Amino acid sequence: MAAKRYLFTPGPTTVPPEVLAALAEPVVHHRGSDFRAVYQECLQRLKQIFRTSSEVLLFTASGTGAMESAVANLCSPGNRVVVVSAGSFGERWAQIAERYGCEVVPVRYEWGETPAADDLAAALRDTNGARAVFLTQSETSTGVVADVQALAAAARPSGAHVVVDAISSVGAVPLEVDAWGIDVACAGSQKALMTPPGLAMASVSDAVWAPEGRSSSPRYYFDWDRTRRAQEQLDSAFTPATSLVVALNVALGLILDAGLEQAFERHRLLGRACREGAKAMGLELFSPDDDSAAVVTAIKTPEGIDATELVSLLRDRYGVQLANGQAQLKGKVFRIGHIGYYDVFDIATALGAVELGLAELGADIERGVAVTKALDVFAEGAKV
Amino acid sequence: MAAKRYLFTPGPTTVPPEVLAALAEPVVHHRGSDFRAVYQECLQRLKQIFRTSSEVLLFTASGTGAMESAVANLCSPGNRVVVVSAGSFGERWAQIAERYGCEVVPVRYEWGETPAADDLAAALRDTNGARAVFLTQSETSTGVVADVQALAAAARPSGAHVVVDAISSVGAVPLEVDAWGIDVACAGSQKALMTPPGLAMASVSDAVWAPEGRSSSPRYYFDWDRTRRAQEQLDSAFTPATSLVVALNVALGLILDAGLEQAFERHRLLGRACREGAKAMGLELFSPDDDSAAVVTAIKTPEGIDATELVSLLRDRYGVQLANGQAQLKGKVFRIGHIGYYDVFDIATALGAVELGLAELGADIERGVAVTKALDVFAEGAKV
Repeated sequence: MAAKRYLFTPGPTTVPPEVLAALAEPVVHHRGSDFRAVYQECLQRLKQIFRTSSEVLLFTASGTGAMESAVANLCSPGNRVVVVSAGSFGERWAQIAERYGCEVVPVRYEWGETPAADDLAAALRDTNGARAVFLTQSETSTGVVADVQALAAAARPSGAHVVVDAISSVGAVPLEVDAWGIDVACAGSQKALMTPPGLAMASVSDAVWAPEGRSSSPRYYFDWDRTRRAQEQLDSAFTPATSLVVALNVALGLILDAGLEQAFERHRLLGRACREGAKAMGLELFSPDDDSAAVVTAIKTPEGIDATELVSLLRDRYGVQLANGQAQLKGKVFRIGHIGYYDVFDIATALGAVELGLAELGADIERGVAVTKALDVFAEGAKV
Repeated sequence: MAAKRYLFTPGPTTVPPEVLAALAEPVVHHRGSDFRAVYQECLQRLKQIFRTSSEVLLFTASGTGAMESAVANLCSPGNRVVVVSAGSFGERWAQIAERYGCEVVPVRYEWGETPAADDLAAALRDTNGARAVFLTQSETSTGVVADVQALAAAARPSGAHVVVDAISSVGAVPLEVDAWGIDVACAGSQKALMTPPGLAMASVSDAVWAPEGRSSSPRYYFDWDRTRRAQEQLDSAFTPATSLVVALNVALGLILDAGLEQAFERHRLLGRACREGAKAMGLELFSPDDDSAAVVTAIKTPEGIDATELVSLLRDRYGVQLANGQAQLKGKVFRIGHIGYYDVFDIATALGAVELGLAELGADIERGVAVTKALDVFAEGAKV
């Protein structure tokens, strides 16, 4: 019998059976009335998820496509932009902006550090006329969730457009696009939105739609004006991934029916259970040891054990897919994503697998303490 | 009971049940070994479909994304490019190239005309140092399939890179990327490749990979070098639409198992049956009345009947989705796509619906002649 498979990475994530079933529905035409009804509902639900009254633009792309759309539509060559970076995805903002000829002013941290609003405010005071500030809400490479509300507030006096990579955070931790003054929030379908990869979103504030909000950079597929004009007529500029849109609409319905607050609380509690379980088996956390780390938990492997080996062993022997560290963290940390369609038994499975794997690789782990602790923390938290 | 639905547009197209079933499989990680095996097979099969030994780059995007990738990677601002245009998708090449600051030399035809290799050769002789020539194999807006082999041959002496939009043609009509000297062929998943929309491809010839083959235009998500580097390691630059890749692999397997030549012959025969059926009920063709028109048949509505009304009526009353004319052809022609997972009974259904709809709108149509003729032509052709 084929081994059961468990997908516990920070994305793509496991999607609910209702969403898989929607994917298997016959293909419909993107300009037919049956698709338009689904499309309208989906676009409306995205606004609720982003907590914005502005249009959320929907692209057939991975999340990086939405990130590039922000740079291409907002920034002209030579524009000065501030990039707050404390990991792999912060660096991606810098790379894209450099590709578009921007002068990048980095506010750079060691990987694993949490960006501070004061640092951003100081950088903006020192930077003459920043066109935009690029932020990462959930830095998937380190497990750090930044305080985007405070960062956006710190950016406001500068007049720079505030752009947030919320790809792995939207639907997992609070994001208040309008209330926090976020001009652009980018997201992807394959994280807490419980849909396979392939759809990217960018909410764009009214402030940005002014004519002076446009860049001179070349763009076509990711052009915001064209995309918005189409969406306003329930049309799409180019053939969208219709099956994924139908699936996303089902997933968003599940999330909103249960309530976003419930999703946030579940993610907080799962993060806590994961951290406490990991610590109980004697492991050291790489991601912060507090409730902000509600998306992905990054854990150091014990001295002498290679995370690459652990991740391979868990995948090949037990069918449990965790994520290795990225770049300089490769081999040193492993990451457990607890995002989207995920419950405490998934935490128990992930930790149980880690326990078995580490023991096999020679670590001295007390049997069952991690799972016991995780269940305990969950039960306590769920009581509140 | 809900009406049965029939999708007979030039894309998206109906996909086989095996492909739908693959879409509903649990999500896997894009860097896990099970996905890599599928990915490798899929990339290999794409080479067979394109008939090239070069890498076929795979993007999560609609086909337009692959088209933009060609302009962004090949063309720098100020480059002179020749665009052969005889419809909506030829114009798209011109629009994208203009957006990237190219000097566009159009070889423009009336919509519905078939581009001639001599015209292109003459234009290239008159154009000093064209960087690239942009062609459309199947102009979905008119039903014309251009002789890309002749056009590419006409372009060769100029040294310009030959770029072909093969989005609705690949897998439906012959395309010999290597043998015909095509530098870049763009395709999409949602036409003859029998997969839902969301994946785009670009084959890129070895000639283009030379360092001088690169442009100075900004690009990130659609950057060819990054994409190729990743694919060579069976990796992807960004999270791909894994579910669609798994589905595409199933569809490509079905096509290649039966043989590409069989697919071409089926499309030819379906086009013939569709044309003869339409003429038998007294309608006038807009697309060419020969076997080249194997992808989509564009048909004029009888005097006094609005194609918009016909398309709406067929969709709302009978669940049969055809396509209206685009731009200046809107209301004047309707289009029947016969692409991919399609057989003679689909032609019969489409023509039967047109017959019922036209009769209802007041046209004088002899009952059953179209379907009779289509079956007859098919039976004759299948004998050969």
